[in-house]
Parts: sequence; structure tokens; C-alpha cells
Amino acid sequence: MQNEISTTTTDFTAALTSVLDEYFNRHAARALEISPYYGALWTEIARLVHAGGKKLRPKMTLMAYRAFGGSDIEKVLPIAAAQELLHVGLLIHDDLIDRDTIRYGVDNIDGGYRKLYESLVGETGERTHYAQSAAMLAGDLLLTGAQQLMLESDIEPARIIEVQKILGTGIFEVIGGELIDTESAFREAGTISAETVARYKTASYSFITPLLIGAVLAGASEPDQARVREFAEAVGVAFQLRDDLIGVFGNEAVTGKSTVGDIREGKRTYLIEQFYLGANEQQKAELEQHFGKSDITPEGVEKVRQLLIDSGAQQKTEDAISDLEAKAQTALEGLTNTAQLKELITLATHRSK
Amino acid sequence: MQNEISTTTTDFTAALTSVLDEYFNRHAARALEISPYYGALWTEIARLVHAGGKKLRPKMTLMAYRAFGGSDIEKVLPIAAAQELLHVGLLIHDDLIDRDTIRYGVDNIDGGYRKLYESLVGETGERTHYAQSAAMLAGDLLLTGAQQLMLESDIEPARIIEVQKILGTGIFEVIGGELIDTESAFREAGTISAETVARYKTASYSFITPLLIGAVLAGASEPDQARVREFAEAVGVAFQLRDDLIGVFGNEAVTGKSTVGDIREGKRTYLIEQFYLGANEQQKAELEQHFGKSDITPEGVEKVRQLLIDSGAQQKTEDAISDLEAKAQTALEGLTNTAQLKELITLATHRSK
Repeated sequence: MQNEISTTTTDFTAALTSVLDEYFNRHAARALEISPYYGALWTEIARLVHAGGKKLRPKMTLMAYRAFGGSDIEKVLPIAAAQELLHVGLLIHDDLIDRDTIRYGVDNIDGGYRKLYESLVGETGERTHYAQSAAMLAGDLLLTGAQQLMLESDIEPARIIEVQKILGTGIFEVIGGELIDTESAFREAGTISAETVARYKTASYSFITPLLIGAVLAGASEPDQARVREFAEAVGVAFQLRDDLIGVFGNEAVTGKSTVGDIREGKRTYLIEQFYLGANEQQKAELEQHFGKSDITPEGVEKVRQLLIDSGAQQKTEDAISDLEAKAQTALEGLTNTAQLKELITLATHRSK
Repeated sequence: MQNEISTTTTDFTAALTSVLDEYFNRHAARALEISPYYGALWTEIARLVHAGGKKLRPKMTLMAYRAFGGSDIEKVLPIAAAQELLHVGLLIHDDLIDRDTIRYGVDNIDGGYRKLYESLVGETGERTHYAQSAAMLAGDLLLTGAQQLMLESDIEPARIIEVQKILGTGIFEVIGGELIDTESAFREAGTISAETVARYKTASYSFITPLLIGAVLAGASEPDQARVREFAEAVGVAFQLRDDLIGVFGNEAVTGKSTVGDIREGKRTYLIEQFYLGANEQQKAELEQHFGKSDITPEGVEKVRQLLIDSGAQQKTEDAISDLEAKAQTALEGLTNTAQLKELITLATHRSK
């Protein structure tokens, strides 16, 4: 079973990469006809997309498509691959909001253009502004490009329109999630729930959109589509809650990223919300001595972790994940051929990185 | 004739406004279900779209649609109106690049959010960053929303896909135009031509896309589509060249905006390119004493204007407009029912504001 999946996954990776390569080569060539500078932007975008590589969302579409009996992988590849464009476009804009210049361990578009413009724009502030402008435009190309790549699928036009509308809902939701996640840094505490952010910023376009599109492409019935939506929402939120736990309690040697960052930033996750619901006044006072402080010590980080355990917040988050897992399992009842979808629950909720 | 057009235009305005109103009301309501803060973003977007009001691009689509015999205005309204979403989305991102906070004489999204966040984010730099982030997301919603609104048209799905692809080309081109226009501030002189910027930043999505979409919706033949494309490109570039002339020689009492701005900014328009091609060394030296200087005096502005006339640059730009006008007229040969399209040439090239 495990082997079968790996083999399949590898095949999909090559096929998806080929669709994306063709898309980027064609657009870079068209861009070059306008200006070498526009060609350069497309080259940068292709570089970033290839640096990512996992193509999880396109693969989820193909997995759901096959689970519901779809067999013409070739025809639906552009629709699956399009979601990688959306994903990277959103990451580019998300990085601008977070003022990050690294993504996938390499320069993102902003970072790449800061270097590219180094010899052209002397003043650092100006150079940053122009690099951010180029990155914003790159994101625009990918967000709109996702919808365009879907049009290239050789299936019935009416079905293309149907999946485009699902994509549109995903975009509408993720941008809402992005906005409220950004505003949660300064809006009144308690007015933006971490679960809502998880539902709209993560579950939406990363789980619901790809799985639902796969099901619809295979002709899944309305009740089955409703099951997929419910399943994907539960798995997507559980994925985010697990992410929050890993961000605080993860093993850096395994995750490859800092497990101090979320604590130092004072990120208002579900875990932290549970802490504030369950902790006593003394615990709250202790947490606030360390949480969200840029100069936090290793001892402070350890203290925060212990408080999150002692207050029951960690366990409540684990319980919420279990509940969502059960909800996802229930949603699959009545469906056949659910092996891969069940495996997705495990992958999303029982991972350590 | 003039009266007939005015009447028709008024009708279209009401019908288009109604489609857009319905779109914004529906999305604001859905956004409110996610968070009042997301609802607020949609309210801001609707406010800005309504402040614009002219809806020239949607009207061009309807004009071309009727010119080629289309009669079911109701069905194509979403496709026409969608182009207003694209337009405002592009303006929002363009304003971020230009660091402008005013559009249509009112706060744009960035400007609106700077005020909205005033009591929430104390530090000005941070507040600006968050306002710009919200504006970027607003632009994302409109750029992707344009493609979504087109899907709501009740025409054959295959034709929706056809016009979506035309829209996609327009987006691809205008973003290229935006990038090179931005980079022309610091790229090596002569490597970005003003005519290329005019073709891709202006003619593309403001003339070619709306007119071609209208023609295709009415079922225009391939050769007729080619005529429309050629016509729209010529009119669009001529429109921009006229804009450049008005920006320098216009009557402020008529245009309602400064005719010093372009000279003070040192904007590298077609007019300025012609100056550098035709002026002698002394004229160039004289121009550079004033052109692009933030502290330019009224006498300096007048001197620049005189140099642009004496060097023949103004006349060459007028000649280029006449050539484009002739090209547009030629493109219309072989078409019937061209009265409104011919009028569009005049409106684009013989205006004084």
C-alpha cells in the first residue's frame, strides 16, 4: 500500500511538473516579446515554483479524482496543477505581508528582486519598495494564472466553469483568512478566533478546494460532494492545530525549523486561546512575562511550554484534533474507495513535522 | 446621433451598476459571515468602485457587442461589468506601486485603511504597512473576482471560456506593462520604449480586451476579430499619446488636474523620447536644467514646454497620433455598423481632458 502510493505520487509529480514547466516556458517566451525585464520576472516566478516542489494541492485533486472513479488524469492535470500557481501566488503576497524574503529556503520574489535591483537602485528603502512591487505583480500573475491554466483542460466547458467557481470560493475564503490573521496582531483580543483563521486561511484552498475539485471532476454526486467538503474542512483545521502544536513542542531536529519562533512572536494560535480559557491568573501572569518577548531566553521558552501543558491547553488542542479526526472519519462513511483519504487524515494530524 | 449615444450610455450605466451592486452586496454578506473585519474590506472596495463610476471598459464591450449584431445585453452584462473589477483591482495595485493614497478624488483602499487603522496601530510605519497589506488583498479580490464574475453570465460555457482567455491575455499584458513602466524609473535609458508601455499598460486591457470580448460575444468572425484587435491597439496607443500631451500642454481649468506633474516627475513619455531624438545638444542641456526637478519654477515649466515645441517633439507626437488614427480607420474598413467605433477614435484622440 505504502509503496503503491509512493509510486503513484512520483508519477503525478513528473506529470504535474511537466504541465507547469510548459506553462512557465510559454509565458516566459511571451513575456520576452514584450521586454527582457518582463521575461526576467517570469524566470523568477518559475524558479520559486520549482523550489517548492511538493505540489500537495494538485496531488490532493488527483487523489480525490481517482477516489471517485476518475480515470482521465491527463485531461485534468491543468486543473490540478493550477492550484500550485494559486498556492505560490498566495505565498508571495503572504510573504510581503510578513516581510519575509526567504521561502522554501531560497529567496522569494521580493528577496530575488532586492538582489536584482542592487546595482540599479542605490537607496535601500527605494530598492525594497521596487522589489516588493515586482513581487506583488508576480503574485498577481499567479493568482490570475491559476484561473487561466484551468481553462486549458480538455474537458467539457461546463465542468471547467463548475471547478473555477470552487476555486473562486477558495480564493474568497483564503483572502478573508489572510486579512483576519494579519489583523489579529492588533484587533481587540477575542474578536478573531484561531479556529476561524484555520478554517479560512488553511482548510479552504489547501484542503477543501483541491479535494472538492477532484471529486467534482470525477462526477461525484451532491451528497458525496458535501461529505468531501465536511471531511476536508475537518482535516484542514486539524492540520493547522497540529501545526500550532509542532510550532511550540516540535523537535527542531525533525522539523528543520525553529520551535521558538511562534512563542517569541506571540502568535495567537488555538493552543494559546485554550490557555487563556483554562489558565488561572497566576499562570497568565507568568506566561505574559515571556510570551511574545523578542528577548525571550531558552528558560523562558521552556517555562511557556510548561505553562501550556500545566494549564491543559496542550491536551485540549490534542482533544480538538481527535474530535476533528473523528469528524473526518464520519464524513467518509457511505463512501467507497477511501483508503487514500483516510491516509490523508493520518498525514495531516499525526505528523511530527 | 449624439443624443442616442447618451441615452444608451445612461441605460448601460444603470444596468452595469446594478450588476456590480449585486456582486458587492452578495460578497460583503458572505464576508461578514467570516468576520466583520472581512466585511469591512468589501465595503471599502465597493465604496471605491462606486466612486469611479464611468465604467468605460464595460461600455466598450457592450458597444462592440452591439456593433457586431449582439442583442442580448442582459446575458453579457456580467462579462462587461467584470472588466470594471479588473480595472479597479489594477488601480489599487498601481497606487501601491506609486504610493498614492487618493483615487477618484477620494481615499483609495490604502488611504481608507490608514484612517481605519489609526486608533488600532500606533506606529505610523507599521500602520502604513498594514494598510498597504489590506489594499494588496483588496486588489487580489478584484483581479480574481473579474474572472469569477464572468462565470455568472448565462451564455454557452464554451464562449465564457473563450472570453476568459481574452481577459487572461489582457491581464498578462497589463502586468507586463506595469512592470516595465515601474522599472523605467531606473533601467538604462532607451531599453524601455514609451510606445511599448502604452501598448501593454494602456491599450491592452483598456481597449483591446473590452472591444475584442464584445466582438467575440456577438460571434464576430476571425478576420473581424483581427480588425478589432488592430483598431483597439491603435486607438489605445493614440489615447496614451494624447494623455501625454495633455499632461504637459493641457489646460488645467479644463482637465481639472495639474499639467506640471509630468514635467516635475520627469516622466519618460513618447513626447520626451521624441525630444531626445530630435533636439540638439543645447536644447537637451536646457531641458535637463528643469525637467524632473522637484523644485521647478513656473518659468522652468514654460521653458520645458517651449523646448518640446521648438524641438519638434510636440508635432511628432501629434503626427504619431494622426498615423494611429488613420490606422484605426483603415482597420474598420470592411466592417459595417462602425459609427460608434469611429466615434471612439475621436473621443480617444481629440479630447482636451
